[in-house]
Amino acid sequence: MNIFYCENIEGDEVVLEENDSKHLVRVLRNKIGDHVILVDGKGLWCEGTIVDDHPKRTQIHIDSRDQKPTQDFHLHVAIAPIKSMDRFEIFLEKATEIGISEITLLKTKHGIRDKVNMDRCQKILIAAMKQSLKAELPKLNPMISVEEFVQQPLIGQKLIAHCENGPKSPIKKVYQKGSDVVIMIGPEGDFNPTEIEAATKTGFEGIDLGKTRLRNETAGIVVVHSFHLLNYDGE
Amino acid sequence: MNIFYCENIEGDEVVLEENDSKHLVRVLRNKIGDHVILVDGKGLWCEGTIVDDHPKRTQIHIDSRDQKPTQDFHLHVAIAPIKSMDRFEIFLEKATEIGISEITLLKTKHGIRDKVNMDRCQKILIAAMKQSLKAELPKLNPMISVEEFVQQPLIGQKLIAHCENGPKSPIKKVYQKGSDVVIMIGPEGDFNPTEIEAATKTGFEGIDLGKTRLRNETAGIVVVHSFHLLNYDGE
Repeated sequence: MNIFYCENIEGDEVVLEENDSKHLVRVLRNKIGDHVILVDGKGLWCEGTIVDDHPKRTQIHIDSRDQKPTQDFHLHVAIAPIKSMDRFEIFLEKATEIGISEITLLKTKHGIRDKVNMDRCQKILIAAMKQSLKAELPKLNPMISVEEFVQQPLIGQKLIAHCENGPKSPIKKVYQKGSDVVIMIGPEGDFNPTEIEAATKTGFEGIDLGKTRLRNETAGIVVVHSFHLLNYDGE
Repeated sequence: MNIFYCENIEGDEVVLEENDSKHLVRVLRNKIGDHVILVDGKGLWCEGTIVDDHPKRTQIHIDSRDQKPTQDFHLHVAIAPIKSMDRFEIFLEKATEIGISEITLLKTKHGIRDKVNMDRCQKILIAAMKQSLKAELPKLNPMISVEEFVQQPLIGQKLIAHCENGPKSPIKKVYQKGSDVVIMIGPEGDFNPTEIEAATKTGFEGIDLGKTRLRNETAGIVVVHSFHLLNYDGE
């Protein structure tokens, strides 16, 4: 069934925004009486029926609501976007699919990219949420420097993955099972020593991702998966 | 420095094949005296110098040879390729980057694709090996049915990831650290019960990848990473 994202699902009737209305009615050729799924990005999963198939403001009657349990732990990845947005979008998609709560874009000394099309990123996240049948949309925070980021109030264990020397451990040795966590991932040229120092001073622990030097987007994906693997003990 | 793949590096002089010669001399504009890296896909990493910059058969003198240690465990993923080759190529690239020994393409009852351009896959693997500065090329086996695959002699622990009911455990509970392993990953519509039975009968254990239903290529990536995470205890 078709899934639509609708930030506010209040009351029994919802009007889809113009693009979604057009897609549902004109492209997918749905009409009055057809069923759709609506998610609000905050865990609410609703089944609904089209009561007005207007191509600009399709009206849906909500038949049932199901508040899905949120992810057991808060996972926040702060990552320096790379030059290739195609590759960065693979990270956004896979991270959403595997399960991530929050993403912050980092502006770094060695990073090539200091501007990102936030609307485009948001669209990728919404598409990935729908495609993986999730009702939770990761929170996407605008770009911020490493120095500013580490000064913010942050939830959970604080980790930084880098390739410089200094004390570092594998994730599985440092991460406390079940904990909320925030982890920083650097650009193609890694964090510079000043950035690593700023993070370490504010309580970030160094993480070593293994024997292979991974691309930035691959590091992002495997980091997200690591916490799920460590936390999952079976149904 | 530029890395080239050359299956046989014997003696002190190597002649690059036509495409690589053209790329090195015409595109990258290298000439006599310039340095290159050659890898043989079996762990050999060589530094060399161009002694003849012929654009069709560039000749390299081998200055040094370094046999890199192979991956600590043999990791063989048998996976049903999906409809979108773009997405399947993401799996090939990321698996090579994270570290995989062998890939078998599975022909399944629910799989849409029963033919794959093997040359194209091989090119992706070579590019990923070079890009992640590895000297080992994963072995790529042609497409085979699940029933035939499970009857083959296979190295290590045998696992199958599927979404059907039946006894299944998280990877971290079943996998014996340090072991060689072969794991099967199904198509978009999962393995069918007959295929799962054929695997179970020949000693494959059911694996549960977590709470989220992952796309085929994402499952492939996280599975490869799982074994590395579980085996890695720091340098």
